Amino acid sequence: MLSALSGEAAKTPPLWLMRQAGRFLPEYRAIRADVPSFLDMCYTPDLATEVTLQPIRRFGFDAAILFSDILVVPDALGQEVWFAEGEGPKLVPLRNSADIDRLQPDAIHETLSPVYQTVRNLSKALPSETTLIGFAGAPWTVATYMIEGGSSRDFFIAKSWAYSEPERFQALIDILVDATAQYLIEQVNAGAEVVQLFDSWAGVLPEKMFRRWVIEPTTRLAALFRAIHPDIPIIGFPRGAGLNYEAYAAETGVTAIGLDTTISGAWATQFGLPVQGNLDPAYILCGGESMVAAARRVMDSFGDAPFIFNLGHGVNKDTPPEHVTELVATVRSWRR
Amino acid sequence: MLSALSGEAAKTPPLWLMRQAGRFLPEYRAIRADVPSFLDMCYTPDLATEVTLQPIRRFGFDAAILFSDILVVPDALGQEVWFAEGEGPKLVPLRNSADIDRLQPDAIHETLSPVYQTVRNLSKALPSETTLIGFAGAPWTVATYMIEGGSSRDFFIAKSWAYSEPERFQALIDILVDATAQYLIEQVNAGAEVVQLFDSWAGVLPEKMFRRWVIEPTTRLAALFRAIHPDIPIIGFPRGAGLNYEAYAAETGVTAIGLDTTISGAWATQFGLPVQGNLDPAYILCGGESMVAAARRVMDSFGDAPFIFNLGHGVNKDTPPEHVTELVATVRSWRR
Repeated sequence: MLSALSGEAAKTPPLWLMRQAGRFLPEYRAIRADVPSFLDMCYTPDLATEVTLQPIRRFGFDAAILFSDILVVPDALGQEVWFAEGEGPKLVPLRNSADIDRLQPDAIHETLSPVYQTVRNLSKALPSETTLIGFAGAPWTVATYMIEGGSSRDFFIAKSWAYSEPERFQALIDILVDATAQYLIEQVNAGAEVVQLFDSWAGVLPEKMFRRWVIEPTTRLAALFRAIHPDIPIIGFPRGAGLNYEAYAAETGVTAIGLDTTISGAWATQFGLPVQGNLDPAYILCGGESMVAAARRVMDSFGDAPFIFNLGHGVNKDTPPEHVTELVATVRSWRR
Repeated sequence: MLSALSGEAAKTPPLWLMRQAGRFLPEYRAIRADVPSFLDMCYTPDLATEVTLQPIRRFGFDAAILFSDILVVPDALGQEVWFAEGEGPKLVPLRNSADIDRLQPDAIHETLSPVYQTVRNLSKALPSETTLIGFAGAPWTVATYMIEGGSSRDFFIAKSWAYSEPERFQALIDILVDATAQYLIEQVNAGAEVVQLFDSWAGVLPEKMFRRWVIEPTTRLAALFRAIHPDIPIIGFPRGAGLNYEAYAAETGVTAIGLDTTISGAWATQFGLPVQGNLDPAYILCGGESMVAAARRVMDSFGDAPFIFNLGHGVNKDTPPEHVTELVATVRSWRR
């Protein structure tokens, strides 16, 4: 994994899957059943450590990603966050500048210290050949949740701030750039070897707004992080960014690019950065021949470029674990 | 509008807005309040005619688009379709090949004849300078609704068919290609001067599947339509297609391309086709300076290419109509 991120193209690619620790695994559901809330899982180091390790034991992935959620940052900033069963995340939405002023960027580590403990646990528990990935949500994506009060279909409220009250929106983004950089720096201090920035809603912005609210904050965040940890790779994942992937790769300073399912490998490898992705998770729901063929197509599409095999989106909860086993065998037996 | 579609770049662009007839207009809501169901609106020519004309009277747009819905085609094929208030469209989902075999492609015109009557009414009622646009959903998008039973977040069921049971999925797509071509041909027979194909979910497919389930069916559909109406322009709108817009423009045979909000005008005009779009509808929720600047930016981005001003997505229901008035004034006063 670390060689791929340093630009080496191996004979067989390193492999992990977004949302590899989660509901599709019976051993995860067994633990989750006894825990009152999803955030309790994230803030209880023994539990978060255990569920992070589960897919490593079962599938032997080359990387473990910290079990957590991008919304621990708003939670740590003092915004109320909860996960309603079957409904996704909910937040008491920010309504005005006073709500932004009430956020507490200097107090985040208090809430987040159990996450750092989980990273320390994992750093000890993982086999030396398994890379430990820390992560955070990117400022634009986290800001949409903070303003919309959850996920959204059209992002009209967040866009209204971003488009017509850019100074107010900038104040929120600035807080998130700083807090997120501090959060990732502490994850590395605790033992994370790579960090990934999830910009799940990067794809809803027109080009000019993409530059202002995705590229610009990501560039600053990467620079703040690099000032402390210059050698730690950053994987940027601007999901849905389409054509804007190119500017993101060229300008933000990330080490590698996570590709969503729609991006052609042949196109993305032209950016000159290592890439990660991008099998459609719908294929592992089905499994079988079509999955195997599609996984090979993904790997073939990257040509001679260094890459990390992954999905273009998280594993779906209804995925049969044995399909993942078959996928791992497919990737392990492929040769460049 | 017709000159722009024939490749002439006018001093000021023609202008209409997707979902210009709809809930953001009080005169629409007044009519809708007395009608039991949304499909009744679509199938009652007097009502559908009236609400199609409302935005023309209020804003003087250059084109009127038939008031209807892309799901009248599954309804006409015999699938049960209804619109649950506030929940979006619902269908009894297709489950197997027997469900596909039960569809009745030869009987669609019976259900759709009120739509053709609406088109005839509009053809008479509209001022001669206002272009009448007919439309349909593209096969891939309509198929997702038919299989998922409504809209979807991840399209896992539709993708499972498309990826792992391509023969069964092809049977459904073939029915939709034929039925949709016949439907559009009849709209033109009734007086439509332009047709638009909405492929709202084109953006969720990996490249190879985009070719197979978006480009290939659209190409066949366009050819069937052109065999009868060679001179009627077709606007293709593969929303979210990102980089795949280029192949869509080059290969499907559509006359012009509808751009979603994320597509750069400077890039899209390189395809050599007239373009339509693509202001983010979030701007007209806010109105004011930011909207005016963004609308001008959209027009400037098209350079010397022929274009039709529009949104990149439908008008949101909470849009103040006076913001649309201001937008119209902005577009009318812009000069190339």
